[in-house]
Amino acid sequence: MSDMTETTPGWLSPDDLEQARARMPILYVEAVPVRVDDSGEVTSIGLLLRMGPEGTVSRTLVSGRVMHHERVRDALLRHLEKDLGPVALPRVPAALQPFTVAEYFPTLGTTPFHDPRQHAVSLAYIVPVTGDCRPRQDALDLVWFSPQEAASPLVQSDMPGGQGVLLKQALAHVGCLT
Amino acid sequence: MSDMTETTPGWLSPDDLEQARARMPILYVEAVPVRVDDSGEVTSIGLLLRMGPEGTVSRTLVSGRVMHHERVRDALLRHLEKDLGPVALPRVPAALQPFTVAEYFPTLGTTPFHDPRQHAVSLAYIVPVTGDCRPRQDALDLVWFSPQEAASPLVQSDMPGGQGVLLKQALAHVGCLT
Amino acid sequence: MSDMTETTPGWLSPDDLEQARARMPILYVEAVPVRVDDSGEVTSIGLLLRMGPEGTVSRTLVSGRVMHHERVRDALLRHLEKDLGPVALPRVPAALQPFTVAEYFPTLGTTPFHDPRQHAVSLAYIVPVTGDCRPRQDALDLVWFSPQEAASPLVQSDMPGGQGVLLKQALAHVGCLT
Amino acid sequence: MSDMTETTPGWLSPDDLEQARARMPILYVEAVPVRVDDSGEVTSIGLLLRMGPEGTVSRTLVSGRVMHHERVRDALLRHLEKDLGPVALPRVPAALQPFTVAEYFPTLGTTPFHDPRQHAVSLAYIVPVTGDCRPRQDALDLVWFSPQEAASPLVQSDMPGGQGVLLKQALAHVGCLT
Repeated sequence: MSDMTETTPGWLSPDDLEQARARMPILYVEAVPVRVDDSGEVTSIGLLLRMGPEGTVSRTLVSGRVMHHERVRDALLRHLEKDLGPVALPRVPAALQPFTVAEYFPTLGTTPFHDPRQHAVSLAYIVPVTGDCRPRQDALDLVWFSPQEAASPLVQSDMPGGQGVLLKQALAHVGCLT
Repeated sequence: MSDMTETTPGWLSPDDLEQARARMPILYVEAVPVRVDDSGEVTSIGLLLRMGPEGTVSRTLVSGRVMHHERVRDALLRHLEKDLGPVALPRVPAALQPFTVAEYFPTLGTTPFHDPRQHAVSLAYIVPVTGDCRPRQDALDLVWFSPQEAASPLVQSDMPGGQGVLLKQALAHVGCLT
Repeated sequence: MSDMTETTPGWLSPDDLEQARARMPILYVEAVPVRVDDSGEVTSIGLLLRMGPEGTVSRTLVSGRVMHHERVRDALLRHLEKDLGPVALPRVPAALQPFTVAEYFPTLGTTPFHDPRQHAVSLAYIVPVTGDCRPRQDALDLVWFSPQEAASPLVQSDMPGGQGVLLKQALAHVGCLT
Repeated sequence: MSDMTETTPGWLSPDDLEQARARMPILYVEAVPVRVDDSGEVTSIGLLLRMGPEGTVSRTLVSGRVMHHERVRDALLRHLEKDLGPVALPRVPAALQPFTVAEYFPTLGTTPFHDPRQHAVSLAYIVPVTGDCRPRQDALDLVWFSPQEAASPLVQSDMPGGQGVLLKQALAHVGCLT
C-alpha cells in the first residue's frame, strides 16, 4: 500500500497522521473490484494503474483508511467512489466478514505485506462493480484482467507491498486461482 | 424444508428420488433474499408465503436441490428464478463460501433443522435482489420484512423445519440481529 | 467494551491514548472463549465477570487493543492469556478471517455496538480453550454457560456495549442459536 | 478425488452407489490437515501418499462421503480418523462454514475440480492436528510439507483431480500463499 495517497480533507493533519502511524495500527479497507456474470462468477478483476513517487508504475487495489466515526461499509463506498468514480455502481457486501485481514508492517518479513509508512491492518473485500469505472485522483487508469492474467507473474510483479498476494487470496476465495 | 415441492421435469422420477432420499444426504442450496441500500446494509428480508399440504400457511426461504452436473451457483440462480420470477435480478455471490451449512435430518433433535422426507444438507447464502419479485410455482406471495420483524416470534413461528433458525443465522451474519 | 481496562505497560501514555481515541478508529480483537466436544461442537461459552466503575457487575468477552507492530494473532493470544491466565491453552484460529467485525461507536444507534470512550473496530473470533481458565487482572471470575443460557435475556442484559449482540452472532455462527 | 476408496461397510452397495453417482451430486467433506504454532499460524501441511490404480503415486487431502443421517462434523471426524489414525487428535472446527466448496465434475473443464466417477460437492475445512498421525487404509504415508513446498509445482503435480487447487485455496485462506 506504499503508493496510496489520501487527500480527503478535514481529517488528520499530516503531522498528526505521522504521529499516529508511529504509535498504533491504522485501520484500512481494501476492495478487489470484479466483474461477475449472471451466476456471480468472477470474469475479470480491475486494477488501478498508478504512477509511483519515483516514476515507477504500479498496479493497486482500491484501498484507504477508515476515518473516525465512519462505518467500515461507508469507508469502502467512499474509497470505491474515490478510486473508480461516481458511476461505478459498486455492490458493497451485505456482511462485514472480510475474506481475509491483511497486515502491512513497516518492517519486511513479518507477514507477506509491507508498508514502509506504517503498521496498517486492512479488511479485504471482493466488490462486484457493474457501472462505468473512471479512475480519479492519482490513478491513471483502471485495467481489467482475466483471473489468469491477474495471477500471472507479470501483473503480480507490478503490485507493491504484497498486494499481489492479497489479490491471489481474493482469486482463491472466489475459486479463480488455478 | 418440509413444504417445498420441486417440479423441475426430467430429473429423478418420484420413485428414484424416494429411494435416494432413504440412502444418502441430498444436497440443497438455500437463499435468503434481501434488499440492501447503497452501502450494502440489509434493509429488508423477503420470505415466500406458501400453502402447506394441510392448508397451513408457512413462510420459507428460497430453497431447492442441486441437480446432477449442475454447479452450485447455477442451482442458486435456477431456484431464485423459479421462486422470485424472471426479473428479480438476484446477485449470486462471487464466492461459494456459504455463511453456514444447514443440516436437515428426518429425525427431530439432531440439529435445529428438520425435514421429515429426507436428510438434506443445505449451503446457505445471502442474496441481494434488486428487481421486481413475482413469486411463481406454489408460492402465494413474497413479503418483505424488516430485520426486526423477520426475527420476531410471530414470523419465526410461521417458518417450518428450522428455517427460522437459519434466517436468524443470516441476520446475525449481516449484523442485523439485535 | 466500556468496562475493559488495559494495563499493558509501555505503549501509549494515557494522554496519547486519549488523543488517538478522539481522532481515529482503534483496532481491537475480541474472542469468544468456548469449550468444544471431540466433533468440534460448542458445548459451553465462557464469560468474564467484571466489576464496573460504579460497582455494577458485567459479563464480557475477551477483548483488547492491537498494539503497534503486533500481529492480530499475537494480540489475540496476549489478551486470551491476560484474561484467562497462562494455562487456558487457547486455540487461536489458523485463518485470520473473523466471523464478523463489530463496530463500537461513541454515539448510540449507529450500530448495535457502543463504547463511550472511542470508535473501536473489533475483529471477532471464536476461540476454543482446553485448559484451566484462571481469570486475572480486573476480572473476578470466568463462568461457563450453555449456548441456551448465553443467549438468554438474563445473561444478555449483563453484557455492556452490545457485546450480547456479538455473543449471539457468535452463537449463530457456530449453529448454537435456536 | 479420483483415487479415494471408501470401505466403510454397511452403507450403499457398490451397485447402489454406482446408480446414485449417475443421478445426483454426492456430498463430500475434505480436510486439509495442518500443524499450527501457539499463535495458530500454520507451520506445515500434511498430505497422504497413495498408490493409484495404475501404480501411480499421488498426494491427497483427507476426503470422503457424508453418510445418510451423519452430521458433517461427524463425517469429518470419521474420515480424519480413518486416514490419520486414532491418535491424530484433530480439531474439527466449531463452525460449519467451510473455507470453500469444491465442485468435482465427471467432465473436465466445468470447474478446476474433476472426478471421473461422479459429480461430488465437497465442503472443505482446515483442520489442525496435534497428535501422532499414522495413515491407515490405502495410504502409504503422511508427509508434512512447509506452506512453500505444498504450493510448489512438484507437489501440486502429484495431486489428482484439482486437489492441488483446493490446497492452494486453503493456503490462501490461512495467509500462507505467497
